[in-house]
Amino acid sequence: MAIEELEQKLKDVIMSIPAYDTDAAERARRHSDQLTKPPGSLGKLEEMAARLAGISGKLWPDLSRRAVIVMAGDHGVCEEGVSAFPSAVTPQMVMNFLHGGAAVNVLARQAGAEVVCVDMGVAAELSHPDLISRKVVYGTANMAKGAAMSREQTLQAIVAGINIAEEKAKQGIALFATGEMGIGNTTASAAIASVLGGLSAELAVGRGTGTGDEALMRKIEVVRKAIAVNEPNPGDPVDVLAKVGGAEIAGLAGVMIGAAANRCPVVIDGYISSAAALAVARLAPGALPYMLASHLSHEHAHGALLEVIGLSPIIHLEMRLGEGTGAVLSFHLIDAALQLMTEMATFDSAGVSKG
Amino acid sequence: MAIEELEQKLKDVIMSIPAYDTDAAERARRHSDQLTKPPGSLGKLEEMAARLAGISGKLWPDLSRRAVIVMAGDHGVCEEGVSAFPSAVTPQMVMNFLHGGAAVNVLARQAGAEVVCVDMGVAAELSHPDLISRKVVYGTANMAKGAAMSREQTLQAIVAGINIAEEKAKQGIALFATGEMGIGNTTASAAIASVLGGLSAELAVGRGTGTGDEALMRKIEVVRKAIAVNEPNPGDPVDVLAKVGGAEIAGLAGVMIGAAANRCPVVIDGYISSAAALAVARLAPGALPYMLASHLSHEHAHGALLEVIGLSPIIHLEMRLGEGTGAVLSFHLIDAALQLMTEMATFDSAGVSKG
Repeated sequence: MAIEELEQKLKDVIMSIPAYDTDAAERARRHSDQLTKPPGSLGKLEEMAARLAGISGKLWPDLSRRAVIVMAGDHGVCEEGVSAFPSAVTPQMVMNFLHGGAAVNVLARQAGAEVVCVDMGVAAELSHPDLISRKVVYGTANMAKGAAMSREQTLQAIVAGINIAEEKAKQGIALFATGEMGIGNTTASAAIASVLGGLSAELAVGRGTGTGDEALMRKIEVVRKAIAVNEPNPGDPVDVLAKVGGAEIAGLAGVMIGAAANRCPVVIDGYISSAAALAVARLAPGALPYMLASHLSHEHAHGALLEVIGLSPIIHLEMRLGEGTGAVLSFHLIDAALQLMTEMATFDSAGVSKG
Repeated sequence: MAIEELEQKLKDVIMSIPAYDTDAAERARRHSDQLTKPPGSLGKLEEMAARLAGISGKLWPDLSRRAVIVMAGDHGVCEEGVSAFPSAVTPQMVMNFLHGGAAVNVLARQAGAEVVCVDMGVAAELSHPDLISRKVVYGTANMAKGAAMSREQTLQAIVAGINIAEEKAKQGIALFATGEMGIGNTTASAAIASVLGGLSAELAVGRGTGTGDEALMRKIEVVRKAIAVNEPNPGDPVDVLAKVGGAEIAGLAGVMIGAAANRCPVVIDGYISSAAALAVARLAPGALPYMLASHLSHEHAHGALLEVIGLSPIIHLEMRLGEGTGAVLSFHLIDAALQLMTEMATFDSAGVSKG
C-alpha cells in the first residue's frame, strides 16, 4: 500500500470502532445488584463485568477463545548502551516463545490463551512455521541520532497490527492481550510517554529489565536527546511512534485499534504496551473503552502512564518482564467477573434478606 | 476440655510450628535465576515461589488440593446499629454457601478449591450435612457493654480452628485460604486492629459492607466504647479476641496456626481475616512465614492493618465482601508462580544470552 492508502485505511478503521453499549453495561449493573452480596462489594470485578457487556453488547460474552499477541522488534538506540542485555536476545527470545519456554507461554497455557508471535522489526532473519512475519524494518534506527522509523514504516506496522487483530477475531478470538519483546524498548516507550503523556524524561525513564545507575542516567539523557533531535509532534501520534517509537510498539497500537473495531476487549500489559495504549488513546479515543488494564509493573513510571490513559491496574506483583505476562495473568480475574455474574445466587433465589 | 487444657493445647501447637526452611527458599531463588528472564523480573511471583519452598521444604510443593475455610459467627454489637444488614443474614448466607450460590463458591470452583463451612457462633440453629458445627456461642455478647466472649469460649474457638486445619491437612489439603461471614464482624475486627495494631478507632473503622455516614460515626464510637469498657490487654491476644473479637475471628486465628503447624501456606483474605492474622502474629510469630496476603480490600484501614502484620497485597480490586473471595482469587497467582518455576526454559536450554 502507498502511504496515502495506509493513512486512509487507519482513518477508516478508527471511524469504524463501534460505540460502547452503555445500555448493556447498565443491564449488567442491574443484574449484579440482584446477587447475594452488598451492592458494589465485588468492586472492580463488577465494573469489569459491566464493561465487558458494554464492549460486546451482550450479557455475558463468551470469552473462552483468547490470544496474547506478542510483537517483537529491535531498537537502534541500543548502541547508546541503554540496556543490560544485548540485542541478540530479541531473536533468541522470539525462538523461546515459539518453542513454548518463556514466561508468557507458561502463563498463556494456564489461562487457556493462544500465543501469537509476530516479527514486526527484529534485526535478524527468523523462520518458524508458527511465526507471523510482518517485518517493516530490520531494527529501528538510533533515535538519538534521527528518526527511528519512517512514517510509512510506522503506518505499515499499525495496519499490520490491525489486520492481525481482525484475522484473529474472525477466527473466533474474543479476548486479546498485548505483549512484546524488544531489547531497548523501554527507552522508546519512555520517549513516547514523555512526548504524548507530558511526563518528564526523569520520571518516564525507568530501569527496564535491569539497568544500573550509570546506564539509567544515560538512558534519561538519550530520551531527552531523541526528543530534541527529532522534535516529534505531540499532536500527531503516528509521528511520535515513527520518530521515537518502534515497530512492535506501533504494531501493538494497531492490535488495540483492531480489537476495538472488532468489539473485543484488549488487555494492556506493562510499560511498553501502555506506551502503545497512550498512542491509541490520542489517535483513536473511541478505542479507550475496549482497553482494560492488568498489572502495575515495577517500572516506576508505569502508574503515572496508566493514570494519563485513565486505566487502573488490578494486579500488583512488581513484575518487569513484558511479553504480555501481566495481561495474561489477569484473564483469570476477567473469567472470575463473568462467572460471578452467571453463577451466583440472587437474593430472591437464595432467600437472603436485603440490607 | 478444661480451660487449662485448652491453654496448654494452644501453647503446644504454637511450639510445634516448624521453622521456615531458608535453605529450600534459597534453592528456589537460585533456580529462578536460571530461567529465561532478567533476574527478579517476575517480582513477587518469584518471592512467592521461594516462600512456598521455604514453607514446604520442597521444590516445588504440590498444592493441587486446596480449601477455603469459611467460618461464621454473629455479633451482639449489632444491636448498636453498626451494620447495614440484619443479623438474620448470617445464617441465610451460611445456607447460601452450603448450596453453592455465594461469591466464594463461584470463585472456589474456579480455583479448584473445596469450601469448608464452619458454624463457630451463629445465633441460630443450623443444620446441613456439609456444615461443620463448632459453635462455641449463639452470637457474641454486645462488646459495647461487656466482653463479647469468655476466655474459655475463645480458646475453644481457636482450638477448633487448629483442629479443622489439622484434619484437613491430614486429608491432603496442602493450601488454605481463610474466609468468614458474620454481620457486625468488621466492627469487632476494627477493635482488634485498634488494640493489637495501635490504629486509632477513626482509622481502624471502615464502612464494612455498606454503612452510611451516620452509622460510621456510631461505629467509631462503639469501637472506642468497647475498648474502654473491656480494657482488653494488648499483650494477651486471647484476651483481645475474647473481649472485642468474635467466634469466627478466633476460629480463623486457629486455622492459621494449625496450617502453619502442618507446614501449609495459608492465604489471608480481607479485613476480618487480617484482624485474625494480626492476633496470630502476636500470639504465634512463628506462623507468620506461612501466611500469604491476597487482596487489598476497599475497607480503608486494610492496607494499614496488613502493613502492621508485614503482609503485602497483590490483588487490588476494591472488593469488600469477605467470605474468602479475595484469598481464593489469589490461588491462581500462586499456581502461576509454581508453574513458571517448573515449566520455563533456562538460559542454557533455550540458548538465550545472559545480560
